[in-house]
Amino acid sequence: MSGIADVARLAGVSKSTASRALTGGGYVSDGTRRRVTDAAASLGYVPTTSAVSLATGRTRTIALIVPKVNRWYFGAIVEGVERSLIPHGYDLTLYVAEPGSRDRESLYSTYLARKRFDGIIAVALEPDDSDLERLVAIDKPTVSIGNALGDIATLGLDNVAITRIITEHLITLGHTDIAFVGSTPPTDAPARDVDERSIGYRNAMNDNGLAVRIRAVPSTLTITDAYAAAASFLADAANRPTGIVAACDEVAIGVMIAARRLGISVPTQLSVVGIDGHDYAEMFALTTIEQYPRDQGTAAAGLLISMIEGVAAPLRTPAATRLVVRASTAPPRSV
Amino acid sequence: MSGIADVARLAGVSKSTASRALTGGGYVSDGTRRRVTDAAASLGYVPTTSAVSLATGRTRTIALIVPKVNRWYFGAIVEGVERSLIPHGYDLTLYVAEPGSRDRESLYSTYLARKRFDGIIAVALEPDDSDLERLVAIDKPTVSIGNALGDIATLGLDNVAITRIITEHLITLGHTDIAFVGSTPPTDAPARDVDERSIGYRNAMNDNGLAVRIRAVPSTLTITDAYAAAASFLADAANRPTGIVAACDEVAIGVMIAARRLGISVPTQLSVVGIDGHDYAEMFALTTIEQYPRDQGTAAAGLLISMIEGVAAPLRTPAATRLVVRASTAPPRSV
Repeated sequence: MSGIADVARLAGVSKSTASRALTGGGYVSDGTRRRVTDAAASLGYVPTTSAVSLATGRTRTIALIVPKVNRWYFGAIVEGVERSLIPHGYDLTLYVAEPGSRDRESLYSTYLARKRFDGIIAVALEPDDSDLERLVAIDKPTVSIGNALGDIATLGLDNVAITRIITEHLITLGHTDIAFVGSTPPTDAPARDVDERSIGYRNAMNDNGLAVRIRAVPSTLTITDAYAAAASFLADAANRPTGIVAACDEVAIGVMIAARRLGISVPTQLSVVGIDGHDYAEMFALTTIEQYPRDQGTAAAGLLISMIEGVAAPLRTPAATRLVVRASTAPPRSV
Repeated sequence: MSGIADVARLAGVSKSTASRALTGGGYVSDGTRRRVTDAAASLGYVPTTSAVSLATGRTRTIALIVPKVNRWYFGAIVEGVERSLIPHGYDLTLYVAEPGSRDRESLYSTYLARKRFDGIIAVALEPDDSDLERLVAIDKPTVSIGNALGDIATLGLDNVAITRIITEHLITLGHTDIAFVGSTPPTDAPARDVDERSIGYRNAMNDNGLAVRIRAVPSTLTITDAYAAAASFLADAANRPTGIVAACDEVAIGVMIAARRLGISVPTQLSVVGIDGHDYAEMFALTTIEQYPRDQGTAAAGLLISMIEGVAAPLRTPAATRLVVRASTAPPRSV
């Protein structure tokens, strides 16, 4: 059986460099790491990672916590994180649990308690105070994507500002009758980002002396649920707005599909704007504010690895966005 | 600091039961495991998993390999696997790498070589012979979702049979001019499942004495790429089929969106069938053969855990499907 000395000889490096490359116990260039892992693979050498972990205190694993995977935004983040970890030789353990679910309790009592990771990336967490306390008690480097949580390093959108921008886009085109679509019913705990987006909309409407109108999408902010909700509220022609600010692109697309089915022309009779830059936005010619969740995942992973290796201090970073005007918005017919 | 004895006392079980519940070294009922993990959490007791792993040879981790996450099918599988693992106290490490990518090489040389898992679930792998050899050489329990690989336990669709069913659905309605949409150009290596689906279509057409027509979707079989391809081939009215068998629902939906934009009425001028039961199928009133990737993920995880614990033998299982007829299919206008 081959040992670390054989791997080092084949890779043309010292034993300690080979060990660092395979265990993550210090800096090694990407090229050297690749030479060493190739040498290890060709010799069939596999370090006993449990022993490595006991020796170094490092697991070379990142914990990623997401509420779901099967949505454009979350799927893109997972792919972005993964892409960033592979070249650094980190493994990704994934934990999927929606806030309020039974699995959510296991998150703290089992998955996080075992601490089989060097750091945590938490996406769209909305912990109440006790959750945040438990997350901080884990005492591992942590990066949040989405919401700012206590003193945790955060990559997130300025939701109030971007929703103001798209609302003002419609106001500038001449719309005065503009509804925000996507709030949850007041009986539910609203998701924090949707809440912030509705504030951005309200601020823009109030500042322009226009009436605030909110249309709820029951259950989830998906294309299908938004389609069902819009098929109902758009059918009321007497109360139909000329412009819609959607809480996200999936809601905007559901509204556009419902409008088409009802024979309502977009943008002639109804202008629609979204937030996201969803994969389908271009196909639906949707005016939207793009965000880049894959890049957010990559940036979060890079930041977390720096923190684990003692380089960077926690910080709060606004994620990049860009307004893309397409054919779903136009002046209202009467202007 | 609390020890295992304190946890056992609080949970009202023996030390060995508490240890089994926390380390996975033998059978413990779900209720007992929950009592023990709750007790451990409330006492702040965390077993040193590296030491546990050295002692038991178990990592209590499952490796999941997928080509991508950000697609309905793969995202649903990841969620299904995760849902099944959480109650068993297994962690999921996720590896995302498309066949032929640079990350793919790391899959074998780094991620799999470290063997930081008790078993593997591989989704839609299409290993060439050398890849399969390397996967088998890992020598861990393995379940494949999608393609049958050598002697590996497989959960998969009978692609030939289901595509024959949807093709014959159109033939029975009276269509004779039916195209299959979704094959990759012959210069590319076709994905095995799409290949099998086109064979099911060919068999049905040949058996009914009808001409085979294939329309390629360049690059990926997504809604957006299918939309772009269909916007081009549907514009040629002289060569437009009356029925389309799509390689998957995303292709079918892309075709339907393109048809609407071109003013081609579905199903009056064009019938469309898909395969998948995608989240959007009902919204588009798409006739399709449903499959259930979330259940496939759950079943694969359950099978793998049984194999790890020495219960089940490897087997090959056809995944459940169901034909759902909706408004996207009708007799052709001339019938």
